[in-house]
Amino acid sequence: MADGGEPGTVRPGGRTARVREAVLRAAEDALTEQGFSGLDLADIARRADVGKTTVYRRWGTVAALVADLLQDMAEQSAPRTETGSLLGDLTANALLVQRTLTDPRQGPLFKALIAAATGDARTAAALHRFYDIRVREWAPCVRQAVERGEVPQGTDAHEVVRAVSAPLYYHLLISGDRLDETTAARAAEAAVTAARAGVYVTDRGTKA
Amino acid sequence: MADGGEPGTVRPGGRTARVREAVLRAAEDALTEQGFSGLDLADIARRADVGKTTVYRRWGTVAALVADLLQDMAEQSAPRTETGSLLGDLTANALLVQRTLTDPRQGPLFKALIAAATGDARTAAALHRFYDIRVREWAPCVRQAVERGEVPQGTDAHEVVRAVSAPLYYHLLISGDRLDETTAARAAEAAVTAARAGVYVTDRGTKA
Repeated sequence: MADGGEPGTVRPGGRTARVREAVLRAAEDALTEQGFSGLDLADIARRADVGKTTVYRRWGTVAALVADLLQDMAEQSAPRTETGSLLGDLTANALLVQRTLTDPRQGPLFKALIAAATGDARTAAALHRFYDIRVREWAPCVRQAVERGEVPQGTDAHEVVRAVSAPLYYHLLISGDRLDETTAARAAEAAVTAARAGVYVTDRGTKA
Repeated sequence: MADGGEPGTVRPGGRTARVREAVLRAAEDALTEQGFSGLDLADIARRADVGKTTVYRRWGTVAALVADLLQDMAEQSAPRTETGSLLGDLTANALLVQRTLTDPRQGPLFKALIAAATGDARTAAALHRFYDIRVREWAPCVRQAVERGEVPQGTDAHEVVRAVSAPLYYHLLISGDRLDETTAARAAEAAVTAARAGVYVTDRGTKA
């Protein structure tokens, strides 16, 4: 991690990091304002006040830049909350997702990233990695609930976490219904109720 | 509804209907093959073997054509299944959604329509109408379950139906996880379990 200045090394906090930061924030701005379809590397370089050739050399394509943005978003994202109960933990998770998706900047950004992923396999892979990292961050709260005896052994922790988010994304992208704190609290309660009843236990058929 | 041939009347089954059918199928083909961003009225007219001016005069914009396609999809879509139990009905619903979203033609079409809606308010409104029609088609199965005493009075039927679909769309668009019959059956079981427990009863605070 030394800022040694050897040719070709990446110096954290140095010029390379500053350029990446400026370009990723410019890409976020462009996605938030105009969505994915108008995204253009030259425009992003202009917004970031970075040379066009630097952007082309470093990222090459819009898809590569978006993948790097999703990597950065995963690195920056908030750690999970621990409240001592599964309902408390997953309600905190649902409220975090609800606040993110209704934020005037983050909401359009996530919509643009999800739309971009529908049309490009590389962006889709980067999006799935981002959500996999987020789900892995929160999955321990379900495993702790198994240890406390709140939900049955064999509960698929990842699928419980995904079940909390699913209705929020459905309201945002599909039905257009209100996405408020009530929606978030209900999503967490539904997932916990189903988890307690054993709905997310895997291989129920073979283990019964 | 008479095929009277008066000037300016729309004759069902006549030339106007045939043109609409050809243009909507061509729009579906284009969306399925290349997604929303490349959609172009002149290209769709060519695919449909219909005059470009006819397409421009009738629909005017890509957004208007996509809205008409969603209207047509809502009119064509399948009626609900009645099995006599809420779990049976909602499992049938989940399997219908799962088959649609994993269909090699319908899956990419729905992805393209959802992506298009993220960037255009008119397309979003048409998408929300489509899903509202589908949710209304299936909501009576929840109201029948209330009458049979399977789920509590005051259960929000629309939200229960949306809860069944939500994990399937989450797998398709967000996490990229497998979207198989097990996912569908579990989505229905989770929604029914939560509904039985009263999670979808509205105004619980004020009515308690």
